[in-house]
Amino acid sequence: MNLLLLELHELSADGHVTLRDGRAAHLRTTLHASPGHRARVGIVDGPKGTGVVTAIEDNAVSLRCAFEPATADVPPVDLLLAVPRPKVLKRLWAQLASLGVGRIILTNAARVERPYFDSHVLDAATYRPLLVEGLQQAQDTRLPLVSIHRRFRVLIEDELDALSDTQTRLVADPSADRHVRDVALVPDGRVLLAVGPEGGWSRFELELLARHRFTTIGMGARTLRSDTACIALLTLVHDACTGVGRGPSGIAPSPAVE
Amino acid sequence: MNLLLLELHELSADGHVTLRDGRAAHLRTTLHASPGHRARVGIVDGPKGTGVVTAIEDNAVSLRCAFEPATADVPPVDLLLAVPRPKVLKRLWAQLASLGVGRIILTNAARVERPYFDSHVLDAATYRPLLVEGLQQAQDTRLPLVSIHRRFRVLIEDELDALSDTQTRLVADPSADRHVRDVALVPDGRVLLAVGPEGGWSRFELELLARHRFTTIGMGARTLRSDTACIALLTLVHDACTGVGRGPSGIAPSPAVE
Repeated sequence: MNLLLLELHELSADGHVTLRDGRAAHLRTTLHASPGHRARVGIVDGPKGTGVVTAIEDNAVSLRCAFEPATADVPPVDLLLAVPRPKVLKRLWAQLASLGVGRIILTNAARVERPYFDSHVLDAATYRPLLVEGLQQAQDTRLPLVSIHRRFRVLIEDELDALSDTQTRLVADPSADRHVRDVALVPDGRVLLAVGPEGGWSRFELELLARHRFTTIGMGARTLRSDTACIALLTLVHDACTGVGRGPSGIAPSPAVE
Repeated sequence: MNLLLLELHELSADGHVTLRDGRAAHLRTTLHASPGHRARVGIVDGPKGTGVVTAIEDNAVSLRCAFEPATADVPPVDLLLAVPRPKVLKRLWAQLASLGVGRIILTNAARVERPYFDSHVLDAATYRPLLVEGLQQAQDTRLPLVSIHRRFRVLIEDELDALSDTQTRLVADPSADRHVRDVALVPDGRVLLAVGPEGGWSRFELELLARHRFTTIGMGARTLRSDTACIALLTLVHDACTGVGRGPSGIAPSPAVE
């Protein structure tokens, strides 16, 4: 937990908060915080700041927080993802939030198995805490927006434009010669990346995506499992976005400081 | 399983093999293979080729295989990795093999917990099948070499040069301003990438690495969990290597064809 993420409603008007859950336990047990301890804090979808521990009583930790004036931008990438196996998706939530995505659009596809939609990993009660965990890891406050779509064609034809107003749309498929780095990105523009199911997109799906401004990217000799591919492709797209105008986004493999 | 990986000793001199394990089950159950079915095959650390099913009896599947004359190069990246939590490492093995690494050098570090070394995930009996699984996914035959080192300083000072003869050495640390893409790589050279433990490298470790030709790379606003960071950094280094001379390596998110 590199950042302690707070909900706006938890804060009093003058920036005080009293925590009693895992965050309090983290402060007490992992960070051995005592009054005066300073911790990096943030408000979900709001600014980051600093919290100073004012009191520790039993399981409760109270902090007085001050926040920066500005909130970070929404990450430059949205993800359109064919619903993965529940076990895989459960692992992915925090990773996606930590890599940084503005919106996660989960969709059905020909090679997605129907029971996947009945899994509790698609319930906000399951995935929201995992997204928050990923944000706290990455020191980000921008909670990805999540929507779930059972009809692929309706999603692409009727709903997608309203969901994701990105300048560039990419779809990953092994048939493509073009690599992420060969795509001309709009400076400071946003990218929508589509990643298919374990068995790949169907021909119909690829053609529908192509008709809706998706450029096929890939690929090469190595075929990756869809969750590994998802992380790898998000990394490359983030990297490409950073190359065109934005400040460094980068990748940091470690520290659990506070 | 996009490639059926065979051990050299399983093959007769004229290229016949009879399988009775999970690979046979995969051919029978997933691919519904019958005599005449052609499957993509490969020999561990040897060439790829094609196998034609000659007989199916009970649980046994026999194939006649023919191989290409050449074996693919060893991947251009070696990985020096501080031993992760066993649960994380168990998941990483197949992912590392599928991303492509020539050698996996696992090391102790100040922030690695001692009990990690006693885990069965460091036994070849556990990790070799997982590496093979990753190779079969990625359609590669080059099994990463694995070594495990309990003494970081001895490893870096005395053993590393013999283990990894890479032209470029990179160490990931959030303190660095330099990004992977800012490093000038040797055309067709190989890269050794060092990824630290969840809590990061210690100052002593970073200084020792710097004295042994490691360039610090990073980083940026987002801190990733060490396993996510590992996948992300390997992706970026592979991408950078591909940019300097090599053919496309690329990323393919899917297909479980055969």
